[in-house]
Amino acid sequence: MNIHSTAIVSQKAILGLDVTIGPFTIIHNNVEIGANTVIESHCEIGISNAMSESKKLIIGERSLIRSHSVFYEGSIFGDELVTGHRVTVREKTKAGVNLQIGTLSDIQGHCEIGDYVRFHSNVHIGQMSSIGNYVWIFPYVVLTNDPHPPSNILQGVTVKDFAAIATMSVILPGAIIEKGVLIGAHSNLKGVTDAHFVYSGNPAVKTCSTTKIKLQDGSGNSAYPWKDRFNRGYPKHISDHW
Amino acid sequence: MNIHSTAIVSQKAILGLDVTIGPFTIIHNNVEIGANTVIESHCEIGISNAMSESKKLIIGERSLIRSHSVFYEGSIFGDELVTGHRVTVREKTKAGVNLQIGTLSDIQGHCEIGDYVRFHSNVHIGQMSSIGNYVWIFPYVVLTNDPHPPSNILQGVTVKDFAAIATMSVILPGAIIEKGVLIGAHSNLKGVTDAHFVYSGNPAVKTCSTTKIKLQDGSGNSAYPWKDRFNRGYPKHISDHW
Amino acid sequence: MNIHSTAIVSQKAILGLDVTIGPFTIIHNNVEIGANTVIESHCEIGISNAMSESKKLIIGERSLIRSHSVFYEGSIFGDELVTGHRVTVREKTKAGVNLQIGTLSDIQGHCEIGDYVRFHSNVHIGQMSSIGNYVWIFPYVVLTNDPHPPSNILQGVTVKDFAAIATMSVILPGAIIEKGVLIGAHSNLKGVTDAHFVYSGNPAVKTCSTTKIKLQDGSGNSAYPWKDRFNRGYPKHISDHW
Repeated sequence: MNIHSTAIVSQKAILGLDVTIGPFTIIHNNVEIGANTVIESHCEIGISNAMSESKKLIIGERSLIRSHSVFYEGSIFGDELVTGHRVTVREKTKAGVNLQIGTLSDIQGHCEIGDYVRFHSNVHIGQMSSIGNYVWIFPYVVLTNDPHPPSNILQGVTVKDFAAIATMSVILPGAIIEKGVLIGAHSNLKGVTDAHFVYSGNPAVKTCSTTKIKLQDGSGNSAYPWKDRFNRGYPKHISDHW
Repeated sequence: MNIHSTAIVSQKAILGLDVTIGPFTIIHNNVEIGANTVIESHCEIGISNAMSESKKLIIGERSLIRSHSVFYEGSIFGDELVTGHRVTVREKTKAGVNLQIGTLSDIQGHCEIGDYVRFHSNVHIGQMSSIGNYVWIFPYVVLTNDPHPPSNILQGVTVKDFAAIATMSVILPGAIIEKGVLIGAHSNLKGVTDAHFVYSGNPAVKTCSTTKIKLQDGSGNSAYPWKDRFNRGYPKHISDHW
Repeated sequence: MNIHSTAIVSQKAILGLDVTIGPFTIIHNNVEIGANTVIESHCEIGISNAMSESKKLIIGERSLIRSHSVFYEGSIFGDELVTGHRVTVREKTKAGVNLQIGTLSDIQGHCEIGDYVRFHSNVHIGQMSSIGNYVWIFPYVVLTNDPHPPSNILQGVTVKDFAAIATMSVILPGAIIEKGVLIGAHSNLKGVTDAHFVYSGNPAVKTCSTTKIKLQDGSGNSAYPWKDRFNRGYPKHISDHW
């Protein structure tokens, strides 16, 4: 155990073997942190609110939460969670193993996230989002949920396995992004999609099969499905999930 | 009074009854905080700069400022201000009662904001903005002000009562959003608008009366004006303001 | 030297004359900070990672890093760097003198930045970006780099001297923004540009010479090239760079 002398750690928090807590970080009561996890400096972990219902925040083993991050109680993460700096994760977020959450990203809670998902910087995941496995969401993308703002009706976005949403896209309430879909940068997507197609523009329209996009390496090969050419940080069995 | 032992609070700051100051938070000299207000951890409140002219920062009663937030001196807020995490509020912001400022939002100061206004996450309010009452601004919206960047000329945006601006929209310098207007997601709005109409797209165009938008509950009823169906957190007299 | 009693400063860090370190700030080993520089509260300066290769972080003289900011080791900044709050700067960023980085901006490292560059709030600079002198980048602009996400191929964006990129624009991988170009707000720019022209829209198209944009002061004069009318914070010899 390696708790910095300036950290404020509740006696009630449950810390696994060899957990590290950085300077000026606060760990509240209702938190369970897996072995070998590192929480960096200036974080606040395990905040309670009216919707967290006093449920635990559970963070898996071998995780890394970078500085200035904020997590609420009532969420659960598999092993090997990795975050950037200043991420916010609200209550009732349920995520699988090896989730990566980029700097400044904001997960509003009340959502499900699969295994090996990557959120790049400054991504906003609205409540009621449902995200599969091996999904990529790039900077400044927002998954919305309110069909006629402001309202109390929430229609979350669904993003299925291996889909990728490029920078600065807005996904409108209730949209369904099927398996292997690519959403182009700066798109505004509404409604349903067909698997393995590209959608882009404002409003986003179906443009072509993802297999029409060529690699920029001069080979003439298709860039998609991306799982055939890119496996950084993934387990060997990724193709089995396809 | 409940000041955490690690907080750094100026002797000159004026704190009302039962104010709470969290761990690792700094309160500077020129600050007046109303009774029963909570300032969470890792905040810096009352920063002085060249434009704040040594004027006080005044925060009303029963307010809540969440962790990692930064406020400059020279601004004034009515009672029941509520912020998310990591908000930034610069000098010469003047706001009414019950303003809500979402996580990561950045108010650049030199602006006026009415009563019961809601800024969701990651909203950017440029200098010289003028915002009415019961306004909603959703994530990643930017109110701009520079007609030919970079310049020293600032033409602020005006947003009138009950207007709503959906996610990722840019409001161009000098634009006027009239009462009850709805700006669709991912829009780029220039110029003036007619009250109670919808504007959307890039460039944004007038699409229909807001009354044409139906509720997603199968009732066939209009979703707008939203004040007829949504009053979470508002006083009973909201209809009187219409 | 003015190091706050709560700051954690490595004995190995090299601090110039009259450096100020604020409360709750952490300065790691491999950091060299020039004379008269101020690092405000709640910062973490000099983080090491796998790509920083144990190279120094060098920050020039008379710089100001505002609160809650995070810098990695392995970057170098000329004198008079000024940042807003909560900026993130990763390894292998090389910048000239008097760079300004706005609140919440995120520089992903592995990039080159010239002299007197201004990033406004919440700007995202992807890896492999190359930015000239006197460049302006406005809020929520993203410089991307991945031509077929996700991939290991990075095609950085090039932005040449005196160019300005307005709010919420996405610059696609490999794009080249020539000297004096203006990118309109909410644009999605791909490919190459001609110097001193305006590009706007989604997708962005060439709209006119920048000289066609008139000042909003009623004079009828052109607003561009902006260097003929705006020199706040610049040295006197700016015209020599044109």
